[in-house]
Amino acid sequence: MTNSSPSLPVAPADIDAAARVLAPFAVRTPLLSLPALDERVGAKVFLKPEMLQRTGSFKFRGAFNKLSSIPQAARGGGVVAFSSGNHAQGVAAAAQILNMRATIVMPADAPRSKRERTMGYGAEVVLYDRDREDREAIARRIAGKHGATLVPPYDDPQVIAGQGTVGREIAEDMAALGLTPDIVIAPASGGGLVAGVATAVLSRYPQAVVMSAEPEGFDDHARSLSVGRREAHQAEGRTICDALMASIPGEITFAVNQRLLVRGVTASDAEVGAAVAFVFRELKLVVEPGGAVGLAALLAGRVEARGKTIAIVLSGGNVDADLYARLIA
Amino acid sequence: MTNSSPSLPVAPADIDAAARVLAPFAVRTPLLSLPALDERVGAKVFLKPEMLQRTGSFKFRGAFNKLSSIPQAARGGGVVAFSSGNHAQGVAAAAQILNMRATIVMPADAPRSKRERTMGYGAEVVLYDRDREDREAIARRIAGKHGATLVPPYDDPQVIAGQGTVGREIAEDMAALGLTPDIVIAPASGGGLVAGVATAVLSRYPQAVVMSAEPEGFDDHARSLSVGRREAHQAEGRTICDALMASIPGEITFAVNQRLLVRGVTASDAEVGAAVAFVFRELKLVVEPGGAVGLAALLAGRVEARGKTIAIVLSGGNVDADLYARLIA
Repeated sequence: MTNSSPSLPVAPADIDAAARVLAPFAVRTPLLSLPALDERVGAKVFLKPEMLQRTGSFKFRGAFNKLSSIPQAARGGGVVAFSSGNHAQGVAAAAQILNMRATIVMPADAPRSKRERTMGYGAEVVLYDRDREDREAIARRIAGKHGATLVPPYDDPQVIAGQGTVGREIAEDMAALGLTPDIVIAPASGGGLVAGVATAVLSRYPQAVVMSAEPEGFDDHARSLSVGRREAHQAEGRTICDALMASIPGEITFAVNQRLLVRGVTASDAEVGAAVAFVFRELKLVVEPGGAVGLAALLAGRVEARGKTIAIVLSGGNVDADLYARLIA
Repeated sequence: MTNSSPSLPVAPADIDAAARVLAPFAVRTPLLSLPALDERVGAKVFLKPEMLQRTGSFKFRGAFNKLSSIPQAARGGGVVAFSSGNHAQGVAAAAQILNMRATIVMPADAPRSKRERTMGYGAEVVLYDRDREDREAIARRIAGKHGATLVPPYDDPQVIAGQGTVGREIAEDMAALGLTPDIVIAPASGGGLVAGVATAVLSRYPQAVVMSAEPEGFDDHARSLSVGRREAHQAEGRTICDALMASIPGEITFAVNQRLLVRGVTASDAEVGAAVAFVFRELKLVVEPGGAVGLAALLAGRVEARGKTIAIVLSGGNVDADLYARLIA
């Protein structure tokens, strides 16, 4: 397993460059450990709390890196994005910092907190019906009308490189502790985060096993990795992991993930809820359901953890208060 | 204003020593900032998230430093402490690490989560009636019977020095950022945290204004600092800040605070609740009511913040899920 092949769309050097672009604006989130967690799973576990990132999720990293790559001449047209919420906030906040106009196409059933926070960063929000309308088509129409640049949520090398700074920081902090990660787990929707994390971590620790984590049923990465080609999940309902509902891995992200990831793990909504409550009780951090799916898989015994050194990305904390109150009850 | 006087019971060097004792066991919590908070109050605000500390509050620091100072010959008798909760967990966790027996005298109405977590660290819990019994007398009786060492919650130089490592880290991180704190605020119950923080911060930044923060009515520090002698508060009811209900500043802590603190600020339960919800929504951290009282005072406009560089200690995150759910609703 290597990620130094020139054929991959994102190289470790791209992530180094993204880290330099992000340094003045992104939070360098710490790497947390918790004796009670280590005892419970019999491993050394480190958590990367991206809810502490600007906008409350890792998505700011990819969005800001992407927007920073737009040539000055094209910035006047602004940006447009489609997103179930966290990417929306990332793009809106990045556009605000860079003084660009942002339009966000968002499902009408996205958590209220995510809509309000997106508007709070000065973006215009256009709602669509998740079951009947095509968000990509709407976003492209807006892009065409305003001359705006479309900012994909995951299937873009600059976005993946930005998210990869999460993995770069994990690797740096592990090195500072004198530790070598055996297993690294990151949530996957379109697969941009885990692709970037895998690229960065494996460039420093080529023996690490990197896994995607998904809600039970919404397991398109687990399936695709297993069969070796992009395959959609079969879920028809909803999951409390509203951030992880993409139906199929991205083309670019899967080109990376197929090469770098070993497998995907999943967790049920009940297991995710238990992980959210665990993080409330033991870590005093607010994690959104989708952000806790990797930890949920670990706590549910889906990862052979004993004796291992494990890093898990908690990818965000944007959750409505009423759902959160129910999950921690 | 100076804290280098030999007459003070805790010196900066004691805090340096505590930092060395704590280094292998305590979490070095980060210093967080939040653009939305800076904009709201027109200041550069830094938050010290001690809910991320081992046991979920700063209290582990003082407890571990104190227990580490007990001579080997006296360790067999174990330790006893009285506490409304966070000190209990700190002592229990420190005793567990140092392989000592711990008995904790705790009010019967303390949050369930705090009782359970204390027992989870292997301590024996003895409950008492907050309105009718004298916790100090009960603790002393137990200490006499077992030959245990009493670990005071605040009025002890080793405890204060341990809590002072919070201020030492704030000062170090501010220096690394090239910033000078104008104002530093820490919650006060018996006053050990703010005494230690003031000692450490002022040794590096002698011009800083250090303030205690208390719940409205439970304002014994604000009163005492104002009149120049230890004075009890006049509150008869309860506050949601269960960790901040001491009736009068400690003798040792007030000897420090009278010299080093400029004044005390307060916040109402409603303002504290709003601060807890703000920290949930914007910072994705779980802060308990008492831990948020400094930030609550800032958000309520009780601090002349505009243009200043401010550090505020969020002192803990041990809050029952039902109260928390109500506060973030």
